[in-house]
Amino acid sequence: MREVMSHLDAAADLEQVLYDVHREIQPLIGQGQLADYIPALSAVDPQQFGLALATTSGEVHGIGDYQLPFSIQSLSKVYAFALALAADGETIWERVGHEASTHPFNSLLQLEHDHGIPRNPFLNAGALVSVDRLMSRHGSAVQPLREFLRAESGNHNIDVEKSVAESERAHCDRNASLAHLMASYGNLDNPVPNVLDNYIEQCALTMSCHDLALAARFLVRGGVRADGTRLLSTDNAKRINATMLVCGMYDQAGAFAFRVGLPAKSGVGGGVLAVVPNRGVLCVWSPGLDRSGNSVAGVAALEAFSLATGWSVF
Amino acid sequence: MREVMSHLDAAADLEQVLYDVHREIQPLIGQGQLADYIPALSAVDPQQFGLALATTSGEVHGIGDYQLPFSIQSLSKVYAFALALAADGETIWERVGHEASTHPFNSLLQLEHDHGIPRNPFLNAGALVSVDRLMSRHGSAVQPLREFLRAESGNHNIDVEKSVAESERAHCDRNASLAHLMASYGNLDNPVPNVLDNYIEQCALTMSCHDLALAARFLVRGGVRADGTRLLSTDNAKRINATMLVCGMYDQAGAFAFRVGLPAKSGVGGGVLAVVPNRGVLCVWSPGLDRSGNSVAGVAALEAFSLATGWSVF
Amino acid sequence: MREVMSHLDAAADLEQVLYDVHREIQPLIGQGQLADYIPALSAVDPQQFGLALATTSGEVHGIGDYQLPFSIQSLSKVYAFALALAADGETIWERVGHEASTHPFNSLLQLEHDHGIPRNPFLNAGALVSVDRLMSRHGSAVQPLREFLRAESGNHNIDVEKSVAESERAHCDRNASLAHLMASYGNLDNPVPNVLDNYIEQCALTMSCHDLALAARFLVRGGVRADGTRLLSTDNAKRINATMLVCGMYDQAGAFAFRVGLPAKSGVGGGVLAVVPNRGVLCVWSPGLDRSGNSVAGVAALEAFSLATGWSVF
Amino acid sequence: MREVMSHLDAAADLEQVLYDVHREIQPLIGQGQLADYIPALSAVDPQQFGLALATTSGEVHGIGDYQLPFSIQSLSKVYAFALALAADGETIWERVGHEASTHPFNSLLQLEHDHGIPRNPFLNAGALVSVDRLMSRHGSAVQPLREFLRAESGNHNIDVEKSVAESERAHCDRNASLAHLMASYGNLDNPVPNVLDNYIEQCALTMSCHDLALAARFLVRGGVRADGTRLLSTDNAKRINATMLVCGMYDQAGAFAFRVGLPAKSGVGGGVLAVVPNRGVLCVWSPGLDRSGNSVAGVAALEAFSLATGWSVF
Repeated sequence: MREVMSHLDAAADLEQVLYDVHREIQPLIGQGQLADYIPALSAVDPQQFGLALATTSGEVHGIGDYQLPFSIQSLSKVYAFALALAADGETIWERVGHEASTHPFNSLLQLEHDHGIPRNPFLNAGALVSVDRLMSRHGSAVQPLREFLRAESGNHNIDVEKSVAESERAHCDRNASLAHLMASYGNLDNPVPNVLDNYIEQCALTMSCHDLALAARFLVRGGVRADGTRLLSTDNAKRINATMLVCGMYDQAGAFAFRVGLPAKSGVGGGVLAVVPNRGVLCVWSPGLDRSGNSVAGVAALEAFSLATGWSVF
Repeated sequence: MREVMSHLDAAADLEQVLYDVHREIQPLIGQGQLADYIPALSAVDPQQFGLALATTSGEVHGIGDYQLPFSIQSLSKVYAFALALAADGETIWERVGHEASTHPFNSLLQLEHDHGIPRNPFLNAGALVSVDRLMSRHGSAVQPLREFLRAESGNHNIDVEKSVAESERAHCDRNASLAHLMASYGNLDNPVPNVLDNYIEQCALTMSCHDLALAARFLVRGGVRADGTRLLSTDNAKRINATMLVCGMYDQAGAFAFRVGLPAKSGVGGGVLAVVPNRGVLCVWSPGLDRSGNSVAGVAALEAFSLATGWSVF
Repeated sequence: MREVMSHLDAAADLEQVLYDVHREIQPLIGQGQLADYIPALSAVDPQQFGLALATTSGEVHGIGDYQLPFSIQSLSKVYAFALALAADGETIWERVGHEASTHPFNSLLQLEHDHGIPRNPFLNAGALVSVDRLMSRHGSAVQPLREFLRAESGNHNIDVEKSVAESERAHCDRNASLAHLMASYGNLDNPVPNVLDNYIEQCALTMSCHDLALAARFLVRGGVRADGTRLLSTDNAKRINATMLVCGMYDQAGAFAFRVGLPAKSGVGGGVLAVVPNRGVLCVWSPGLDRSGNSVAGVAALEAFSLATGWSVF
Repeated sequence: MREVMSHLDAAADLEQVLYDVHREIQPLIGQGQLADYIPALSAVDPQQFGLALATTSGEVHGIGDYQLPFSIQSLSKVYAFALALAADGETIWERVGHEASTHPFNSLLQLEHDHGIPRNPFLNAGALVSVDRLMSRHGSAVQPLREFLRAESGNHNIDVEKSVAESERAHCDRNASLAHLMASYGNLDNPVPNVLDNYIEQCALTMSCHDLALAARFLVRGGVRADGTRLLSTDNAKRINATMLVCGMYDQAGAFAFRVGLPAKSGVGGGVLAVVPNRGVLCVWSPGLDRSGNSVAGVAALEAFSLATGWSVF
């Protein structure tokens, strides 16, 4: 990493970088397509953009709409998987892998080939495993997840956006197909409709960049939560980061590692979460998506940030 | 990364770690299968094991057979690609991608689907692109590659092992199939037999862990060669590391990122090269392979080393 | 076709052929596996075997257990598709194709690749289209189908076996996955649970070889029903035969055309229906299945019959 | 089959049908694309059209350019396979299958999946098996094939068009890829360059509809050649017909069975051969191809002929 890093920790410098990044990627805000398969998401204002950095120690720096809640969608997969891994331990890897997929996030191709074992926890099928495991452990997936997100961010208003959940429930045939396929291979223990319901609700949580970044700090604190208790071992926290780097950005994981060099996970609500080991967590949001489902302005902002700071794992 | 790192740079500590790692993985040496599709490789003594670390500044620490030359095979893909990227610049990404493949290293499935553009430079097909580009630029691939490896390692005896090359030439139908498929899509400029010849010769180079680690230091020196001249920009050096992490370990890239957390590339000769950003390059060798073609004892040694030192990008 | 055919129409000769065939394939009866994914089917006596020929004019010749009802399973796909084609006309080909599949009968691979359009009406997915179309036209699929089968066979006791339907309902995740995938592409108009219910019930109809052969005579009568009214045009009746020949025997369609040379459709209950243009319809039944899901003794009997009579379309 | 057939054998009637068919499909002549990947084929006059029927007894009826030689291309696969089957007997089925392929004629996807065993003899890969077997038996594939075609048609001028062979030799990377892949699995016994040479030459034979139809009469004569000697058993002749019906028309085999109902094989030179069991062999030619590589006017003419005569196997 570059010289610039050493004095970057000074808050003033970070604020300046955020300001510069925002200005630089301004022309990209509003570009791309809104997620159109969920009506509630296609009604969002495409001109929104927010970027937040939560440092390891808990400071938050932000710019733009970084305090505005949005639909977290697949960002939920990171937190839900962490909770499932905490609950199940190593045995969860018998139900989900940690290899990249060359197919889209909702594809059934690989899933049939692999007899119902999803390639990784960040595909829809993989997230259904996390949900199913949480349900078996806690009776619910969305409840312990919401509780965790509230505790880590300190924001007790975090909740499911009912209109988004309704909208997704009316358009969930693809996920229902994935869930039934996994059930046919014995890789879901709870009834498919219940698993789908929890999955839909966790996707429909609304949070701001500010809160999402705070809530993911356990990934840069060796598995330790905000209150100092341990969620995961250091090694397991690293493993989530490794899996995010290899699998987190749909079929653009390699391109993102190449351009940005940070473990990351994106959601079709336009959010992207990126982990900077030992430093902090970035969360960016802008609703316009590229063809792979990643935020156009969000990915560009992370790339600009990485270039400006030299923060990259490589 | 952990506390332990700060005082690890002391040579004595590193030597101790290498010693401990060697002892720890001793039971795995000799396990796995020798590469059996190349007769010359299946005659190797499976009990051999070597591990070397070349630091950014050029010190080399090693243990076991780390000074014994072996067939570098696919490790050549890293150096050849770096030279091709240096020669071609960004345009090389029109001929080869940087995404993981879910298929084996010599599969034609993805290649036909992607119209002759290999998924990444570390598959056989991707390496044929590097060879073809070097031939177009320099009239040969193996000559500039050998010259580079000799200069970076300071060992002017590095050369092609003729018996291995002969053996591979007699069993190259699979690679010939890949090359002709790419040629049918216009993704090779030189005659297929010449490209295959250069490819086979570069795989048949023999080098020690010591020399391989030294020769890859440009990846931890921001693209700068041993003599201080620049081969690649800092960003391009990082991009090679990113691509290795996502794609370098055949269909086990995710598992390796998960277990070891370092950019790496393996070869069926039993060698594995691993990059520790800002610190140095590891090269391990032991001929027994797992089902994906990665050295059993080699991967275990890198995992043990990573655990002992806390060196990991995550 | 061979000389033997001209005098074979004599009833005595046909009875002799049936007797010889039965004796010849005796050692195969009981071989193979019972369908084990539906508990109600795995409880059937594997030693049963029946073979019936219904001539164009309506005579029935039979041997063995040809009057014993069994679970018709996928044989229902032929009749349901014929009714759906009669109802919809040519437009049904916008929802289902007529090409062979190289994948198993319940695979999702091709279906995702083809955006929810099944390759042919004799795969599970294709049969879900027939069911959905009949529901849109008649409010139900199983009711008009049962009515048709009763009318054509003259047997008014034909009905759904409730225990089989219950058993399938409890193990229908795979078909639910197919149905939801098709629904996600807009290729089902009715609610998935209702479509599945009708599909399961039509598979759970029980009929004898005698009745199944009689009920398929419209395929050798140019689309004309038992009562002389027209169900389909001559061309459409031929097209169903053509589609059966190319697609009717799961992934063994080519092998069956090769060995037997007749349009045919099999079911995992152990039944196989085969059409001899201009002559009649054969129905054979024996529960033991080969790895593709076709009756071992049934296919052998059809091959022996074809060799003995020279009846083949080639 | 329909009434009309009984009096159709009268030569006058057949000539009238050919005349009507020619007039009916006139607007389609010239439509479609010429095969553009072989320069020598793309220079052909697209307005040409010929149709011939050779009856079982050896009469030939024809219309249009039915006596003009054209490049037979993949039609050669039928004759070459028949000779290979005659030479090898049943053992040839260990090297090639008889199932349809859902992939294009020159795809490597299925071939890798099936470990070098082509799905059927009418794909390029399958034809390479025929060539290899003939070379092992006779030292050459194209020589015994040319001899056979001359003997069956009575035309001793049939020969390889050198300019077409040269053109194909310069564009054979795709077939070279197929051949090397098969060689890598041990499914070719002769050197790949020699196999390719023979394959290319047999594709570059030029023949007229008249001669092609005559030369295929063994398929409607139970395997018996023009001179009364036996090439194949009756069952093997039927099996070739069955395999043509299931696999002969590239990825449109089902559609062709559906529309025309006859075993057939097409070539990218614009020829289509169709077998009417017990009656005769049709050969049609018009160079414009549809997207699957089948002659647009040729397929339409066969459909019109089948409708007019009722000749269909279903």
